[in-house]
Amino acid sequence: MGGDEAPEIVIEGMKLFSRERQDVSFIMHGDARRIEPLLKKAPEIRDISKLHHTDSQILMEDKPSQALRKARNSSMWNAVESVKSGAAHAAVSAGNTGALMAISIMLLRKMKGVHRPGMTALWPTQKGVCIVLDVGANLDADATQLAIFAIMGEAYARAVTGKKHPSVGLLNIGAEESKGHSHLKMAADMISSDLLGLNYHGFVEGDDIPAGTVDVVVTDGFSGNVALKTAEGTARLVASYMKEAFAGDIFSKIGAGLAASGLRRLRVKMNPSKVNGGVLLGLNGVVVKSHGGTDAQGYATAINLAADLAKSNYKDELIVGLERIVQMTENQDFVKDTL
Amino acid sequence: MGGDEAPEIVIEGMKLFSRERQDVSFIMHGDARRIEPLLKKAPEIRDISKLHHTDSQILMEDKPSQALRKARNSSMWNAVESVKSGAAHAAVSAGNTGALMAISIMLLRKMKGVHRPGMTALWPTQKGVCIVLDVGANLDADATQLAIFAIMGEAYARAVTGKKHPSVGLLNIGAEESKGHSHLKMAADMISSDLLGLNYHGFVEGDDIPAGTVDVVVTDGFSGNVALKTAEGTARLVASYMKEAFAGDIFSKIGAGLAASGLRRLRVKMNPSKVNGGVLLGLNGVVVKSHGGTDAQGYATAINLAADLAKSNYKDELIVGLERIVQMTENQDFVKDTL
Repeated sequence: MGGDEAPEIVIEGMKLFSRERQDVSFIMHGDARRIEPLLKKAPEIRDISKLHHTDSQILMEDKPSQALRKARNSSMWNAVESVKSGAAHAAVSAGNTGALMAISIMLLRKMKGVHRPGMTALWPTQKGVCIVLDVGANLDADATQLAIFAIMGEAYARAVTGKKHPSVGLLNIGAEESKGHSHLKMAADMISSDLLGLNYHGFVEGDDIPAGTVDVVVTDGFSGNVALKTAEGTARLVASYMKEAFAGDIFSKIGAGLAASGLRRLRVKMNPSKVNGGVLLGLNGVVVKSHGGTDAQGYATAINLAADLAKSNYKDELIVGLERIVQMTENQDFVKDTL
Repeated sequence: MGGDEAPEIVIEGMKLFSRERQDVSFIMHGDARRIEPLLKKAPEIRDISKLHHTDSQILMEDKPSQALRKARNSSMWNAVESVKSGAAHAAVSAGNTGALMAISIMLLRKMKGVHRPGMTALWPTQKGVCIVLDVGANLDADATQLAIFAIMGEAYARAVTGKKHPSVGLLNIGAEESKGHSHLKMAADMISSDLLGLNYHGFVEGDDIPAGTVDVVVTDGFSGNVALKTAEGTARLVASYMKEAFAGDIFSKIGAGLAASGLRRLRVKMNPSKVNGGVLLGLNGVVVKSHGGTDAQGYATAINLAADLAKSNYKDELIVGLERIVQMTENQDFVKDTL
């Protein structure tokens, strides 16, 4: 029920997804009066979809306090609850982000060893995609939390990119070892430690994210969110420059017409729905947050992400990694060395 | 002497600048053996340029400690010294950023009331330009430092944009009042106080920078630098997508040929040399840092910025603003209210 054009666009996304991939069935949570007629007209997914009716729904504009008061039995709550009960292997929602985080943490609980869950973004890069976390679940992060983000992000990157040893970078200003906050230096010591077995690249800067220098960029929620929003705004700025450039004179217009297929490829490349889906890592269950304003392709992408993650060894790998962090922080010698 | 193609490109920039504007004369600091022959071939600026020879030069790759050891009597040192002595009204350098900051702070000293100087960036936006500070002179900033950045950025924006009441936003994650660190809330209280008389817009997010929502965006050096680098990288990513798109098929190639004038306009719009020049605000004198890899146009832009700033009331306005901040932080009632 969440997102700008739900439930219609959600069902379009499910249809798109099911054309590509047949190993997933659906449990839909929401208003049956609105969803049932749509499902009847969707033979591709009708037989693989169960519908659980609920009248209640959290709205995009609900403040956190309002959302939590009416959370129980809302479509969002029931979707996450179905992951908790084991009925579903993953949940996807395009609804209110704050409410989805709060309900997910409340119902699924943090994994043992996780201080705070981290929200990821899939980022288009010169080389493919990069995973950035945290992009806003928390305001800040200490060294241990950053090391936990590194472990979570690496396991997640392995699940969705198929790379065996995804590389990890720590966001900083200036790649020189001497720069940066002391907690970043301590985090670097932890992440590069042999005990964790991560493929640590070193410090990276903001431009290394779109350059694709590493597979995973670790940062606190404030910096990650600033980077994400700035990148979105910059892409919009360049797109508007481009529109102006082609509107300029008759040759430019004819040129734009002839270059239509090229421009279409460009739009596909720049289409944020191809990289749609943020995951709240560190919970006992997979929850994917889709952008509320995405299109059917965006929903298909988010469902694909949820399916990949639910089928991967991500959770078992994460348990091992988190145990190593607990060992490390309990190890007095290490802490003494790095402080 | 600083930057990738100095001194040739610097002189080309001076020539470009002097075609547009005749109210500025130059004092050049550097190796006369290399500069003199170039000046002889530049009748536009020969008669308005004095040359102060020095053999010594700080290199781009010098580490801060190396740079400081050989700083005295280097071309960079002498340029800043000429501002201190009153011989010059402003200095422009494309050299080693860290060294320029250290030398400028050492020679020009911080203005009374300034805790730490802030480095600015001029940012292209949907509506023109936006000034962002701090973009990396400091790692972090408390509420008072952010309020001082707001005062400095506003006075600077008035000097370079000509707007009487530039609007000021405070970078945060989520525009809701309830979000964000407590020091950001306190900074918002200070910046919005009637005592400062600023045109405070409220919290802004990363995408508000390229959108041009406000004229000045205030943030700490870590977040500002992450935003700046991320935006640069994103623009490069989109440009490489564009290149690929037009290289795709024969129609796209012909289209790109026909659209050449449009694409040229796009390149001009996206050209970072049109917004070249960072200013270290809060010192007793104007120092502009040009990008080391910029072209002649970039040097002309940086010189123009220095001239605008030197001719403006920026410093007097800043003195008034800084006095107000001192009054405010000495005012017990205000601090009690905001804490």
